[in-house]
Amino acid sequence: MFQHIKDLQFDARVSRPDPRFANLLLEQFGGGNGELKAAMQYFVQAFGCRRAYPDKYDLLMDIATEEFSHLEIVGATITMLLDGVNSEIKDAAEGNLVAQMGNGSAKKNHVIAMAMDNPKFLLESAGGPLVTDSVGVPWTGVFVNSNGDLTVDLRSNIGAETRAKIVYERLLEFTDDPYVQDSLRFLMTREIAHFQQFSAALSTIEPNFPPGAMQGDLRFTHTYFNMSPSEDARGPWNKGKGPWEAGEKWEYVEDAVAQVEETKGQADKAIEGHERNEKTVHKIERDLAKQRSAEVTTPKNGEFAWSRYTESSAANE
Amino acid sequence: MFQHIKDLQFDARVSRPDPRFANLLLEQFGGGNGELKAAMQYFVQAFGCRRAYPDKYDLLMDIATEEFSHLEIVGATITMLLDGVNSEIKDAAEGNLVAQMGNGSAKKNHVIAMAMDNPKFLLESAGGPLVTDSVGVPWTGVFVNSNGDLTVDLRSNIGAETRAKIVYERLLEFTDDPYVQDSLRFLMTREIAHFQQFSAALSTIEPNFPPGAMQGDLRFTHTYFNMSPSEDARGPWNKGKGPWEAGEKWEYVEDAVAQVEETKGQADKAIEGHERNEKTVHKIERDLAKQRSAEVTTPKNGEFAWSRYTESSAANE
Amino acid sequence: MFQHIKDLQFDARVSRPDPRFANLLLEQFGGGNGELKAAMQYFVQAFGCRRAYPDKYDLLMDIATEEFSHLEIVGATITMLLDGVNSEIKDAAEGNLVAQMGNGSAKKNHVIAMAMDNPKFLLESAGGPLVTDSVGVPWTGVFVNSNGDLTVDLRSNIGAETRAKIVYERLLEFTDDPYVQDSLRFLMTREIAHFQQFSAALSTIEPNFPPGAMQGDLRFTHTYFNMSPSEDARGPWNKGKGPWEAGEKWEYVEDAVAQVEETKGQADKAIEGHERNEKTVHKIERDLAKQRSAEVTTPKNGEFAWSRYTESSAANE
Amino acid sequence: MFQHIKDLQFDARVSRPDPRFANLLLEQFGGGNGELKAAMQYFVQAFGCRRAYPDKYDLLMDIATEEFSHLEIVGATITMLLDGVNSEIKDAAEGNLVAQMGNGSAKKNHVIAMAMDNPKFLLESAGGPLVTDSVGVPWTGVFVNSNGDLTVDLRSNIGAETRAKIVYERLLEFTDDPYVQDSLRFLMTREIAHFQQFSAALSTIEPNFPPGAMQGDLRFTHTYFNMSPSEDARGPWNKGKGPWEAGEKWEYVEDAVAQVEETKGQADKAIEGHERNEKTVHKIERDLAKQRSAEVTTPKNGEFAWSRYTESSAANE
Amino acid sequence: MFQHIKDLQFDARVSRPDPRFANLLLEQFGGGNGELKAAMQYFVQAFGCRRAYPDKYDLLMDIATEEFSHLEIVGATITMLLDGVNSEIKDAAEGNLVAQMGNGSAKKNHVIAMAMDNPKFLLESAGGPLVTDSVGVPWTGVFVNSNGDLTVDLRSNIGAETRAKIVYERLLEFTDDPYVQDSLRFLMTREIAHFQQFSAALSTIEPNFPPGAMQGDLRFTHTYFNMSPSEDARGPWNKGKGPWEAGEKWEYVEDAVAQVEETKGQADKAIEGHERNEKTVHKIERDLAKQRSAEVTTPKNGEFAWSRYTESSAANE
Amino acid sequence: MFQHIKDLQFDARVSRPDPRFANLLLEQFGGGNGELKAAMQYFVQAFGCRRAYPDKYDLLMDIATEEFSHLEIVGATITMLLDGVNSEIKDAAEGNLVAQMGNGSAKKNHVIAMAMDNPKFLLESAGGPLVTDSVGVPWTGVFVNSNGDLTVDLRSNIGAETRAKIVYERLLEFTDDPYVQDSLRFLMTREIAHFQQFSAALSTIEPNFPPGAMQGDLRFTHTYFNMSPSEDARGPWNKGKGPWEAGEKWEYVEDAVAQVEETKGQADKAIEGHERNEKTVHKIERDLAKQRSAEVTTPKNGEFAWSRYTESSAANE
Repeated sequence: MFQHIKDLQFDARVSRPDPRFANLLLEQFGGGNGELKAAMQYFVQAFGCRRAYPDKYDLLMDIATEEFSHLEIVGATITMLLDGVNSEIKDAAEGNLVAQMGNGSAKKNHVIAMAMDNPKFLLESAGGPLVTDSVGVPWTGVFVNSNGDLTVDLRSNIGAETRAKIVYERLLEFTDDPYVQDSLRFLMTREIAHFQQFSAALSTIEPNFPPGAMQGDLRFTHTYFNMSPSEDARGPWNKGKGPWEAGEKWEYVEDAVAQVEETKGQADKAIEGHERNEKTVHKIERDLAKQRSAEVTTPKNGEFAWSRYTESSAANE
Repeated sequence: MFQHIKDLQFDARVSRPDPRFANLLLEQFGGGNGELKAAMQYFVQAFGCRRAYPDKYDLLMDIATEEFSHLEIVGATITMLLDGVNSEIKDAAEGNLVAQMGNGSAKKNHVIAMAMDNPKFLLESAGGPLVTDSVGVPWTGVFVNSNGDLTVDLRSNIGAETRAKIVYERLLEFTDDPYVQDSLRFLMTREIAHFQQFSAALSTIEPNFPPGAMQGDLRFTHTYFNMSPSEDARGPWNKGKGPWEAGEKWEYVEDAVAQVEETKGQADKAIEGHERNEKTVHKIERDLAKQRSAEVTTPKNGEFAWSRYTESSAANE
Repeated sequence: MFQHIKDLQFDARVSRPDPRFANLLLEQFGGGNGELKAAMQYFVQAFGCRRAYPDKYDLLMDIATEEFSHLEIVGATITMLLDGVNSEIKDAAEGNLVAQMGNGSAKKNHVIAMAMDNPKFLLESAGGPLVTDSVGVPWTGVFVNSNGDLTVDLRSNIGAETRAKIVYERLLEFTDDPYVQDSLRFLMTREIAHFQQFSAALSTIEPNFPPGAMQGDLRFTHTYFNMSPSEDARGPWNKGKGPWEAGEKWEYVEDAVAQVEETKGQADKAIEGHERNEKTVHKIERDLAKQRSAEVTTPKNGEFAWSRYTESSAANE
Repeated sequence: MFQHIKDLQFDARVSRPDPRFANLLLEQFGGGNGELKAAMQYFVQAFGCRRAYPDKYDLLMDIATEEFSHLEIVGATITMLLDGVNSEIKDAAEGNLVAQMGNGSAKKNHVIAMAMDNPKFLLESAGGPLVTDSVGVPWTGVFVNSNGDLTVDLRSNIGAETRAKIVYERLLEFTDDPYVQDSLRFLMTREIAHFQQFSAALSTIEPNFPPGAMQGDLRFTHTYFNMSPSEDARGPWNKGKGPWEAGEKWEYVEDAVAQVEETKGQADKAIEGHERNEKTVHKIERDLAKQRSAEVTTPKNGEFAWSRYTESSAANE
Repeated sequence: MFQHIKDLQFDARVSRPDPRFANLLLEQFGGGNGELKAAMQYFVQAFGCRRAYPDKYDLLMDIATEEFSHLEIVGATITMLLDGVNSEIKDAAEGNLVAQMGNGSAKKNHVIAMAMDNPKFLLESAGGPLVTDSVGVPWTGVFVNSNGDLTVDLRSNIGAETRAKIVYERLLEFTDDPYVQDSLRFLMTREIAHFQQFSAALSTIEPNFPPGAMQGDLRFTHTYFNMSPSEDARGPWNKGKGPWEAGEKWEYVEDAVAQVEETKGQADKAIEGHERNEKTVHKIERDLAKQRSAEVTTPKNGEFAWSRYTESSAANE
Repeated sequence: MFQHIKDLQFDARVSRPDPRFANLLLEQFGGGNGELKAAMQYFVQAFGCRRAYPDKYDLLMDIATEEFSHLEIVGATITMLLDGVNSEIKDAAEGNLVAQMGNGSAKKNHVIAMAMDNPKFLLESAGGPLVTDSVGVPWTGVFVNSNGDLTVDLRSNIGAETRAKIVYERLLEFTDDPYVQDSLRFLMTREIAHFQQFSAALSTIEPNFPPGAMQGDLRFTHTYFNMSPSEDARGPWNKGKGPWEAGEKWEYVEDAVAQVEETKGQADKAIEGHERNEKTVHKIERDLAKQRSAEVTTPKNGEFAWSRYTESSAANE
C-alpha cells in the first residue's frame, strides 16, 4: 500500500509564474518519457518478479515510489508556474481577456499566452496539470514496457532513464528561474542515478542475454546484412569479433540482395563465424528454461497470497 | 511524497489460478473506470485546490492514495490468478503448447485460454498486469477529468465512483473464488464510501451550482425542448417547479421545431417561469467571480512554494 | 430516425472572422466535454433503458437530439469565424502567404495565425471544423460513459454537464464578439438546464444508491482511511453522521498503515458505525436484483422489435 | 437542427438474442467503416461547402441524417440481440454466472460467451452498444475525412461507401436470422445508393481533377517508376495513353534507381509524354484559384449568419 | 525484401533553416494523409491480392516503395529545415535560450519558435522528424484502409491520393524557398500520377461495383430519401436516370418521415425505378461469389510459399 | 530511396492455414515490439545523425531496411496462414457460415474461429494483415523512440531488440508448423544480432553516459532512497562502489521520509560518496556541449542538401 506525505521530496519553488514554461513542463508530467510513465513502468514490472527476484521487487518498488514522488514535484511546479492564471480566469467577465490579446501587457503573458500555446490546457484545467504531454496528447498505457522477463525489463528501464534525462536537459535550457532549475536538476540527476541502479541490478543476473531461454539460430546470430549499400561503414558492429564470448566473429554480407538468391532465401546458408553448435545450444536452452520456470513455479495449493498476514492460506472452499 | 508499504491494504488472496478471470479483472487495473483512473483523477485535482481548499486537498490526497493502494491490490490479484502461466511459458520449448490446444487438460486452461482470449496479455506480459483494459486497449489520460473548479471535480468524482461500483458488481458475478470475492467486495465497498465522502464535501461548498461564476441566460435555464416528439413523457424534469429555488418552474416547448420559427431562432424568446432578473444575476456573477478569484489569488512575490520548509522564499535572483 | 431542419436551433452569427477563437471553439466541437460527446453519450444510453424506463428514454432522446443541434451551432460558428480563410487559401499561389508572415497586416491574422496555432486545422480542413479538440487531438469514444444502469448514467451526465458548463464559461472570456457571446451563453445555459433535468430524473428512481443490487461490506462503507496524515482536515466527509440514512456514522482511521497491521490486512476489522446487519443487507440485495432484472426481462418470443409497426412479430423460422 | 422520430427508418427486429453477433455488429456502430463515421464525415463536410455549393450541402445533410438514422438501426439491433443479457446480469448474485461456464446450457450462450469474446462490452455496457468497434477499440475522429475541397471530399465518400458495403456483406454471412438479414441488407443497399449519389454529384463539378488549383509538374504527371523490378506487369496504368485528356501517354521508367543517377535526382528529367506546357498550366492554375476562391469569398460585413432569420445582421459593434 | 539506396529519389535541398515550416511539413511525414500512411496502405493491400491479381500486386508494390522513398524525402527536408536547431540545443547551458525569448534576434527564430509552436517536437526529437502529424498527434494504424477486396482498396487509394494532393498544395503556399517548393511540387505531382494509375487499374476489373458479390435489395438501390427537407436541391444524384446501367432511374422520397409511416418501416415498400428482378440478381451473386472465391482459392497442400525458391514445398512433417 | 525485391529475405512458408496463429502473429506486424516499430524507429533516428555520425547512419539504415524486409516476412506469413479464409468468405451467401458455428468441422476452424477471436481482423481485412496488434489495437507512432541523441537512441534500440526477442520466443511456443518455426527463429535470431550491433556501436562513442552534456547534481547522483522500507534488499545497485568510475560509492538513505525532514526538502543535503566537484563537472559540461554542438553544426550557406548530386547548392534566391 502507499502512504502520502504532504512534503515534497524536493522543496520545489518558483520565482514567478511562467505559463509558457508550465506548458513545456507538462512533457514530464504526462509525456512519453515523463514521471508517470516511469512510475507506472516500474510499478507494473514489480508484480511479475516479486517471487523470483524479491530483491529486484524491492528495487523496483523503491524507484517506482520515488517516481510517483517526482510526478508530484512536477505537478506542484506546474501549478506554481500557473499561479495567477487560475485567479485571472475566475475573475473574468465575458470577453474581458480579449482586449489584452492585442497589446503587450504583462498580464497578457499569463492567460492569453497559455490560451494560444495550448488552448486545451487553459480551457480544461485552468491552472492545474493535465494528464497529457506538452502538446495536449493524452498519456497512454502504450508508454509502459513490462514484459515479464527481468532482463528485458531492466534494459527497457535503462533506455527509459536515458530518454528522461535528455528531456530534462532540454527543459533546463528554457528556464532561467533558479528555483525551477534546482528542481529540474534534481529530477534529471535522479534519472542518472536510476540508470546506474538498473544497470547494476542487471549485472547480477547471469546469463542476462539473450533474454528468455531460446538461443539464436547459429547461422544468423553473427551476420551483418548490408541492406543500404554504398558509403558503407565498418566498425565493431560488423567487423572483427563481436562484443560477446570468444571464438565468434562477425560475418559481413556485402550484397544482401544477391545473398538471398545465392542461398535460396537462406535455405543454403551455412554457419560461419563462431564455434558453438546446435547441440550445445539446445542444452543451454533446456537448462535455462528449467531454471527460469522454477523461479516462478506455481506454489503448492494454499499459498496464493501476497502479504505477510497469511499464516495459513488453505482455500476456504 | 509517497512511501510504499509492502503489505497490501487488504490481504488479497486467491484459491487457485484463473487466467480468464485475470483477464476480466484487467478492466479495473487499466480500464476507464478502474483504479488507476480514480487515483490519477483525484491526485491531479488536488494540485489545483491546495491553496483555496486545503481541507479538500487533504480529502483528495487521502482518497487518491487509497486508490493507488487499491490499484496494487488489483495488480497483485491478477498476478496471483496468473500463477502458473508465467512458469509454463518459461518452460516451453518451440511449439510444445500447441499440442494442448486440441484437448481439455487442466493445463490448457492456463496458457492456451489466455492466448486465445487476450493474446497481447500473454505475449507481452506473460504473467503480470498490463496498463490496458480487459480487451487490451491502453489506459489513456482521457479518462481523467480535472477541470480546476472543485464543484465540477467533485461531481465528476461522484459519477466516477458509481461507474467503478457497478463494474465491480459485474465482476463479482464471474468468480466463485471466495478469496477473490472478498477482495472485490472490499474494493466495491470503498467506491460506495468514496461516493459518500465526495457528496458530503460538495455540500460544504455554497453555492455549488452552477459551477464557475456565470449564471445562465434567464430565457433558457428553465426551458425543456421536446426534440423527440410523440410518446412524450412528463415528470419533474420538464413539469412543475424545478429542483431548485422557489418561484421558478419548467417551461415546456411542445414543438421545438416550430418554436425556432416562431422565435426567429430564439431572438424573440421571452423570459418565462422564474422571478430572477438580469440585474440580480449580474450581481451574483460579479460577487462570485470576485470571491472565487480571491480564493486562488496570486501570492505576493517570494511565496511561491509548496512545502513547509520554505521559511523565506524570496527568489534568489 | 432523425430529420434535419436547415435552421439552427439558435440563430448563430458572428461579427467578423476570428480564426484564433475558431480554434479555441473546436474544444466544444470535438473535445472531451463538447457537444458531440454529450450527444453520443445520451443517445447511446437511451438504447439500454428504452424498455425499463420509457420516460427516461424520451428524456435522453430529447436531450441527445438537442445536443446534436448544438453541435451544429458550434460547427456553424466555427465555419463563420473562418470565413475568409478558405478563400485566401484557395487563391494562394506557391509561397505567397509567406511574405505576410513577417509583417502585421490584418490579413496575416486570418491564415497565418491559424497555421501557427493549429497547423492541422489549416492544412487538413481549410475552413471547416475538425472532429478534434482545440489542440488537434481526435475525438474518441472513450469520452462516452454509458454503463447500462440508469442511476449510474444519470450521475455521469450530471458530471458531464457541469464540465461542459465551465468550459463554455472560459470560452466566453476570450471573445468580445456580441453575436458569438450570445450563442455561447445560450449553449452554456442549456448545460445548466440539462443538469437540472438529469438531477430531477434521478430523483424519481428509488433507491438510486448504490447503483446495481449489491450493497457494501458493512465493515467498510462508513470508514475513512487517513492515507495522507498530517495537516488533516475533518468535515462531514469523515466526521459525524454521514449524508445517508439515520443510525450510521463515520469511522475515522487515524493511521491507515498501522490499521492494516492491527487488523491483519482487514481480516480482523469489525463492523462499526451503523446499525444494519448482513441479513438485512442480503435481503435488500435479493429484492433489488429481482426487481431490476424484471424491468429488463426478456420478452416472450415474437416480441423482439423496436418500432410500433410490428403487429405480430413471430419469428419466421 | 435535428428532430428525432421514435420510429426507426427500417422496422428492425430480431428472432432471438445472439450476443456473439451483437459483438460483430458493433463494427458498424463504432468501427472505422461504420454508421457513426459516415454520419459525422458527411455532416462535417457540409459546413464547409454550404455557401459555395448549396445543392451539395443539401445532399450531404440528407445523407448524413440518413446515416445517423442508420446508426440508430444498428444500435437498436445490437440492443435487441442482447435482450436477456442485461436481465441475467442484474439478477446475478456473486459468482453465480461462473457455474455455467463449464457446461453447455443455452443460458451460457448469453452472458458467458459475451464475457469471453468482448469482456469490456459486458462489464461496461451490460446490454447496450458501446462507441467502439467489434474488438473494443474506441471510435476516433481520425476516421473522418473532411478536407475543405468538395472534389476531395466526394472521392473520400466514394471510398468510404465501398468499404461500408463490403463490411455489411461479410456480416451477412454470420447470421441466419432472417430479420437481422433484412436489416443488414437494407443498410448495405443504402451504401450502394449513396455511392451512386456521391459519384453523380462529383460529375457535376468540372474540372474535378486534380483537386485544388495547382496542376502537376509536367515532368512527373505521366511517369511510372518501376520500384519493384522483376515480374513486372504492364497495363493501362503504366502503358499507352493514360485515362485522361488526349495527347498524353505514360512514360515507363524501367529502372527507377538508375534513373535517379542518370537524372541527378530528377534535376535533368525532361518532360515526356504529353503536350501541355508550363504556360498553359499556369494559366489554368490562376483561373482555377480565382474561381474557387470566389466561390467561398468573404461576405460583406454584416452577412456572417447561417439561418434565414437574419434580415439585417449588421454587427452591433 | 527492400534495399535502401542512399540517394534520394528527388534531390531535395533547402535554402535555409525554417523550423516553423518544418513543423507544418510534419503533417506529410506522420499525418493522416502523409507518406507513411500511403506507403503502409499500399504495402498492406499488396499481400492480399498477390495470388489473385499479380499485376496489381506489382503495381501496389511499385507505388508503396515509391511512397517509402517519398517519406524519406519529407524526413530529409524536415531535418535540413531544422539544421541549426540541434546544434543550438546541444550547445545551450541551463537557461541560456531564455534570454532570447524577449528579443527579435534571428537566432530566436530557430529554437524558441519551435519550442512554442510544437514543444514536443523540440523536447523529444531536437532536430529530426517525429512519427506524428503537425500538432504532435502520433501516426496511427487507423489511417490505413485495407479491406481485402481490390475494387474497394483501389477506391480507398483514389480518395487517399486526392487528400494527399490537396495537403501538398496548401503546404506550398507557406514556403517561398524555391528548393522546398521544387520538392513539394514533385511530391504533389506524384499523387496526381498515382491517382491516375489506381483509376486505370480499377477500370481493368469488371464488374467493379458493387464490391464483393452481394447485390443490393432492389427496393432501395435507387431511392433518395430527402432527410433534410426545405431548400431541396435536385440533380443527377436524385433525379433522372442514375449513373449506371440503362433502364433504371432515381426514386425521390419527398418526405422521408411520412414514407416510414406509409410503408410501415419499409415493410410495404415496392420496387420502383429499374428493371432487374430478384432472380437475375441472385444469379449475379452466385456467379460472382464463385468467381471471386476461385481467384483466391486455397492451393493444394505443399504450395504455401511466397518466394520463387520453393521448388517442392511439401511440408516436412 | 528504397527498392523492392520480390523475393523475401527468408523463404517463408507454412504447412497449412492456421488463422488463430495468424492472429497471434499480428503482434509482430502491428504491435508495440513488432517489425514496423523497429523499422520506423531506426529509420527516423537515422535522419538526425546523418551528418554527425555517417557510420551510424549507415548502420541504422541497414537495420531499418532489414526490419522493413522482416515486416514483409511477417505479413506474408500471416497471409499464407489465412489462405482459405479469404476464399471461404468470398464464396459465402447470407448466413451460410453460421451453420458451422455449432459443429466441429475443420472448416469451422478457418473462418469462424477467426471471427470469434478477432472479429475486426475478419470483417475488415478478410485475409491480409492489419496495422494493429494481436487484439486489434492500431499501431501508433508512440511506439517509436527517437530523441536526437545517439547514445539515447542506441540504448532505446537495445531495449527494443530484447523486447522483440522475447515476444518471438513466446510466439514460437504456439506453433508446431516447422516452416513457421523456421521463419520465427530467423526473425528472433536477427533481434539478437541487432542487439549486439547496437551495443557495439554504442561502445564506440565516448563518453556515452550520461547522454547530452549536463552532468548530475553531485548531491544526488549516488544516492539510493529507500522508499519502500522493510524487507529491504541490498546489492550493487545501492551498496558499495557503483558501476562507474573509481572513487565513488553508493549513499543509502535508510528512511527517505525522515531524510526529507532532516534536509529540509534536500536543501541541506551534503555531497557524499564521490570525489568530483562542481568545478570539474562544469568543465566537462562546457566541453561536451561544445563538442556535440560542433558535430551537428550548421553548414555554411549553400550546403543544405542531402544527396551527392548537389555539386553547387548555392541557394537560388
